[in-house]
Amino acid sequence: MRHRSGEVLATVVDAGGQPLRDREVVVEQRTHAFAFGNIGFDFVPLANGEPGQPAGALADLWLDVFNTATLPFYWAGFEPERGRPDTRRLRRTAQWFTARGCRVKGHPLVWHTLTPGWLSGLRIDEVEAAVRARIRREVADFADVVHTWDAINEAVIMPVFRNEERPNEITRLARAWGRIATIRLAFQEARAADPTATLVLNDFDTSTAYECLIEGVLEAGVRIDAIGLQSHMHQGYWGEERTLAILERFARYGLPLHLTETTLLSGDLMPPEIEDLNDYQPPSWPSTPEGEQRQAEEIVRHYRTLLAHPSVQAITYWGLTDRGAWLGAPAGLVRADGTPKPAYHALRDLVKGEWWRPPTTLRTDDAGGFPVRGFLGDYQVRCAGRTAHLAITAPGRTTSTLRLG
Amino acid sequence: MRHRSGEVLATVVDAGGQPLRDREVVVEQRTHAFAFGNIGFDFVPLANGEPGQPAGALADLWLDVFNTATLPFYWAGFEPERGRPDTRRLRRTAQWFTARGCRVKGHPLVWHTLTPGWLSGLRIDEVEAAVRARIRREVADFADVVHTWDAINEAVIMPVFRNEERPNEITRLARAWGRIATIRLAFQEARAADPTATLVLNDFDTSTAYECLIEGVLEAGVRIDAIGLQSHMHQGYWGEERTLAILERFARYGLPLHLTETTLLSGDLMPPEIEDLNDYQPPSWPSTPEGEQRQAEEIVRHYRTLLAHPSVQAITYWGLTDRGAWLGAPAGLVRADGTPKPAYHALRDLVKGEWWRPPTTLRTDDAGGFPVRGFLGDYQVRCAGRTAHLAITAPGRTTSTLRLG
Repeated sequence: MRHRSGEVLATVVDAGGQPLRDREVVVEQRTHAFAFGNIGFDFVPLANGEPGQPAGALADLWLDVFNTATLPFYWAGFEPERGRPDTRRLRRTAQWFTARGCRVKGHPLVWHTLTPGWLSGLRIDEVEAAVRARIRREVADFADVVHTWDAINEAVIMPVFRNEERPNEITRLARAWGRIATIRLAFQEARAADPTATLVLNDFDTSTAYECLIEGVLEAGVRIDAIGLQSHMHQGYWGEERTLAILERFARYGLPLHLTETTLLSGDLMPPEIEDLNDYQPPSWPSTPEGEQRQAEEIVRHYRTLLAHPSVQAITYWGLTDRGAWLGAPAGLVRADGTPKPAYHALRDLVKGEWWRPPTTLRTDDAGGFPVRGFLGDYQVRCAGRTAHLAITAPGRTTSTLRLG
Repeated sequence: MRHRSGEVLATVVDAGGQPLRDREVVVEQRTHAFAFGNIGFDFVPLANGEPGQPAGALADLWLDVFNTATLPFYWAGFEPERGRPDTRRLRRTAQWFTARGCRVKGHPLVWHTLTPGWLSGLRIDEVEAAVRARIRREVADFADVVHTWDAINEAVIMPVFRNEERPNEITRLARAWGRIATIRLAFQEARAADPTATLVLNDFDTSTAYECLIEGVLEAGVRIDAIGLQSHMHQGYWGEERTLAILERFARYGLPLHLTETTLLSGDLMPPEIEDLNDYQPPSWPSTPEGEQRQAEEIVRHYRTLLAHPSVQAITYWGLTDRGAWLGAPAGLVRADGTPKPAYHALRDLVKGEWWRPPTTLRTDDAGGFPVRGFLGDYQVRCAGRTAHLAITAPGRTTSTLRLG
């Protein structure tokens, strides 16, 4: 995977600038540049010192594999009472992750599902004003800790969404304005509140409809930073061929691809005739030994396929544990009892094994030089009792001089 | 169907402007404003005095029901050798129809299927120039006889079309530029060549993808005059509910809807698993008595549903006879032996029966007035041995004074 790794010809020098020749150096990878993400929803209580699950053991499992946390900004849950957003708890959670070296992503700023009850009955211009204000507020309040946002979620279906008890106000807005104007609103407000944020257009629809929408958005001059592709595979692993075909189709726009919501089941699959995944929630949906083996094999195949494509910059797995998993499906990498499934180990073996440089001892040459090869990311170099940091930021070969002491 | 009909309170006056009181008038409808279309492909030889099928009897059947002919401008057939377009034969055919009171539509100016062989191997800018020139040429050459064009056909699938032996140059163009830029090209060139023409965006895709594309096109400022919805129903009649749902979704854009390619079979249906209809062509596909009854019932239901929706301005049935029908399917309204099927009679009973005003005798009142109620269209009024013309152009009630003599 040439596009995922690089080589730095490093030179260590002492405080006076003299090369440290023929010395032992220990090189160790510290982070991945690639975003290995997962949702951090479960850790809100823990980060806020609230009682209840999960225990720290689950956090350790999370932090050992993932480096990017998606936090929930579903409007209904975040601001159930108008004017009283859950900002403090979410900020603490974001800070909990950043303090542990993780990046944080917010999901989502605009979506037609999970809209707050107080929105209903407002005039359309009041809905618009409320949506604009909510985007500005969240993006500004979290600008120091959240650098990536799903600016808008599932815009393809948004104006025609029907699978709900009462019509929601965001669908009303999208229907009145059209998809592109609604998308423009989301990106404009978020961009204004934090010009440095990475703003994602996110959808589960990987059909031609999403292509057409993206082309319309780009033609309309709306700048999007990444194309988000959900990949809940409750009905079965896509396989390499389908996955690559999807990546190729969406890579055409020259934008980074974020695989935003990835799941693979370790139990029975959802029947293929279900169209809206929400429509299938059996009373019991256990993880099975055969399912866990299959999940482990598939997660390796899927992550290999995705990382092999140069456009993919992020993969977010959707959930660590089966406890409380979406739809009750056995989509987690950890069982409800807290023990890791084979898929957890398999993914860790990639992220912290095959794609990771463990502490490695090298010797500097006559000019104090030594090569550091590895996946893009941050590295630590120890030599002569001192430590320096080194980043491999791009494929190919670069040079770097590290001053020790 | 209030939106399809109107009432004119007409007054007949003599050459001196005096009302013709208490006189007998005969009112008779001559044309429908609504476009009842069919393809006119079969009549190119007849219109050009060439030997072979069809005979005039088929033309009579055509002209008795339909008022709008779609003529074939498939590039491969129209200009098989570069620089030698089939303009003369097609112009004669268009004139043959206009001489018989019909309107003519051209299909299509840009499409990825049936591209000429000489296009392959050209550089992309040469392809662009050729496409532009071809649009300008056809629209200008036919500006006096063709007033409606499918400016571009099947743009949703255009850049990702794969179902062909060799990749075609129009797909290459659409892939390089994107759908919207390709659509813009088609509309710009056609509009420049004939600013008065009705330009249609036409597609078989009635999914969300087409909605997204339309929204992108409108946001990009491309003016389209009508949304074309193909409705080949080889896999079965859509039914009222699905038809209405589609009409509602596409009526949202405030543009006229043209149902551009309508077929209903009078034999076995195509299996539902076929995605590209071209992939299914059995060696024999007969029209059956049961199928003909079903087709007759369905065509009535379908035309009633379409005319009941105010946005629908045109319906083009795709073929009159089974002889040479697309895919060999029994989609015609006339059997291969030239005899009309029940569906032909059923459609005629609507177009020239229920929705038509036959010669009707009325008497003028004391002011020379009489009401003409009927479907929008042109009417003839005979009184005192003279004839006048009257148009019902809009729903509601209007007045008109007709000078006789």
